[in-house]
Amino acid sequence: MRITKPTLLVDAVKVRQNIRQMAGKAKQKNLIFRPHFKTHQSAEIGSWFREDGVNQITVSSVEMAEYFAQAGWNNITIAFPFNQLEMERINNLAGKIKLSILLIHPESVAFLKTHLTTKLTAFIKIDCGYQRSGIPAENLTEIEKLLNKMAEVDNLNFAGFLTHSGHTYQAASRKDILNIHQEVKKKMINLKNQFATQFPNLLLSLGDTPSCSLAEDFSGIDEIRPGNFVFYDVMQFKLGVCNPEQIAVALVCPIVSQNLQRNELVIYGGAVHLSKEFVLNPDGSRNFGLVVKLTESGWTLPLAGAFVTSLSQEHGIINMRRKDLANFEIGDLIGILPVHSCLTSNLTKARKILNKSLN
Amino acid sequence: MRITKPTLLVDAVKVRQNIRQMAGKAKQKNLIFRPHFKTHQSAEIGSWFREDGVNQITVSSVEMAEYFAQAGWNNITIAFPFNQLEMERINNLAGKIKLSILLIHPESVAFLKTHLTTKLTAFIKIDCGYQRSGIPAENLTEIEKLLNKMAEVDNLNFAGFLTHSGHTYQAASRKDILNIHQEVKKKMINLKNQFATQFPNLLLSLGDTPSCSLAEDFSGIDEIRPGNFVFYDVMQFKLGVCNPEQIAVALVCPIVSQNLQRNELVIYGGAVHLSKEFVLNPDGSRNFGLVVKLTESGWTLPLAGAFVTSLSQEHGIINMRRKDLANFEIGDLIGILPVHSCLTSNLTKARKILNKSLN
Repeated sequence: MRITKPTLLVDAVKVRQNIRQMAGKAKQKNLIFRPHFKTHQSAEIGSWFREDGVNQITVSSVEMAEYFAQAGWNNITIAFPFNQLEMERINNLAGKIKLSILLIHPESVAFLKTHLTTKLTAFIKIDCGYQRSGIPAENLTEIEKLLNKMAEVDNLNFAGFLTHSGHTYQAASRKDILNIHQEVKKKMINLKNQFATQFPNLLLSLGDTPSCSLAEDFSGIDEIRPGNFVFYDVMQFKLGVCNPEQIAVALVCPIVSQNLQRNELVIYGGAVHLSKEFVLNPDGSRNFGLVVKLTESGWTLPLAGAFVTSLSQEHGIINMRRKDLANFEIGDLIGILPVHSCLTSNLTKARKILNKSLN
Repeated sequence: MRITKPTLLVDAVKVRQNIRQMAGKAKQKNLIFRPHFKTHQSAEIGSWFREDGVNQITVSSVEMAEYFAQAGWNNITIAFPFNQLEMERINNLAGKIKLSILLIHPESVAFLKTHLTTKLTAFIKIDCGYQRSGIPAENLTEIEKLLNKMAEVDNLNFAGFLTHSGHTYQAASRKDILNIHQEVKKKMINLKNQFATQFPNLLLSLGDTPSCSLAEDFSGIDEIRPGNFVFYDVMQFKLGVCNPEQIAVALVCPIVSQNLQRNELVIYGGAVHLSKEFVLNPDGSRNFGLVVKLTESGWTLPLAGAFVTSLSQEHGIINMRRKDLANFEIGDLIGILPVHSCLTSNLTKARKILNKSLN
């Protein structure tokens, strides 16, 4: 491979295994699988999901919905609070595909009442403990108020309750993730029970990668929307959600300098490629990525004791064991497994897909 | 202004004041002013520097050098360790403009000896304490070894010593920044003295924004290369390097939700717009940006007690005083002063330049 600057390698075999595994789980559990495409943001990678029967997707912006609609997807949920300033684009898009949005506030519904020009589906965004956005699951009064408002809007179809348990990313252990999942599930099912008479077809949708990867009990849930699992990353590995073999992307970086006294390599690859997301090492230091060697068809498992210790705009600093340093020279390429693949993937326009023909 | 999604506002009046002030200082101190263009990465904003007599610039990648060469800049330093994998592009560009690169290692010079096809200028990268890359200023043996190697390469012109004191970004106070500056200056001047007989025209180049903004004593230094000052940001403000009025960019974000119990607003504006860079509040919590109100021609000073408490991919959470919350509604636009303007500017394709005609 002729790579001269930071480039994201995408291992097609790993990506397809990750997709197949999650699609298989959804099928087995009788769940609608509506993967979140914000992680890869790629029409090509998106097309691989079709092989596993996916025809409904999730995105996090109107812009992304337009992009994937252009690529042939005609059933899209924008899993982000309704932004009334983009009403015109939402009307346009909803006229062409089955579009779903998220609602939280009566003000937003009032706005839709006077501005919606075509059929549109809406989920109510529920907060089950993450405390980012949504009506708290316990607040039945607010939910009922919103539903009543929604009923006044022609063309607006209530689909169900949607939540995102982003607090699983802060979990201390797998058990902690499973506990959060159970608690969220319980809250959501309680909501369904409350409103089932009025809305017998309402759906319950949830979707963080940690829960969807680890949990086995989805009874009562209708839809899952994980996104990160398509690539996974160091954060998911540290959470115990995936193993390093499942991480499907690596940023390839040229080695441009070294400091043997400090056991360091300097790479062309910085915050504008990896993002400044980090995980903490056991000693409290920041870890901006794990380090792999490149192979004929991809990369090795992470080198023990090696990690990215700091990032500036275009520079990255890698620390590794002295004996491993000898394997790398200035002018070589080296791989970094990103801490947060969604952000790294968003930043890296230069990409190379590996092992496409193996599938 | 008709803005519907996260958009970077650039206040042309503030930018030009920042440029004029730094250019004026350089002129007064008889320094070559070679501003770093990695912060704005914009041909248009770059052109404003010409009004203050700038005709030499710094960039941090070959790609950026190509972009600005295309925009008419013909004297460019790539302030990044030489990446031999990009030799072909460097040869091409150096054939068209006066291009300077940074050298640290004899291996790189050996590579140039067999691959350089045109005239090229090189600085030796010196480490004066930042410990990112470069030969330690004390290591005269290494420097001499590198100079001897360089002398063997036809077409390679040694220009001088270049350092970047990135450790000023970790400084605890203005005094700390000035102390670092003095120490760095001393080390660099010592180097010049050591090699002045052999290279009477060698230049000393330094260039972090904190030192260049605060220091007055540049005696013995030939060139400065600050970059961030063009926009400044919350990090520089917290360091005591600029005042909030000088911050020349704000990310405008739609308000899409709120939580009055938690004194929070939810904005469309996340890590893919602002980056995940943060500063610490006095209580140890993370601060991902300060909050401003938009005005007819720009924005206000930061609202006291208001800041971005967390960011996910597209969401931002703002916390503010209860009494201020009443001034904002869902559907309004609000401004965020970024923590690190270089990264925010790199991320935001959507930009709007304000007050251009006032100059």
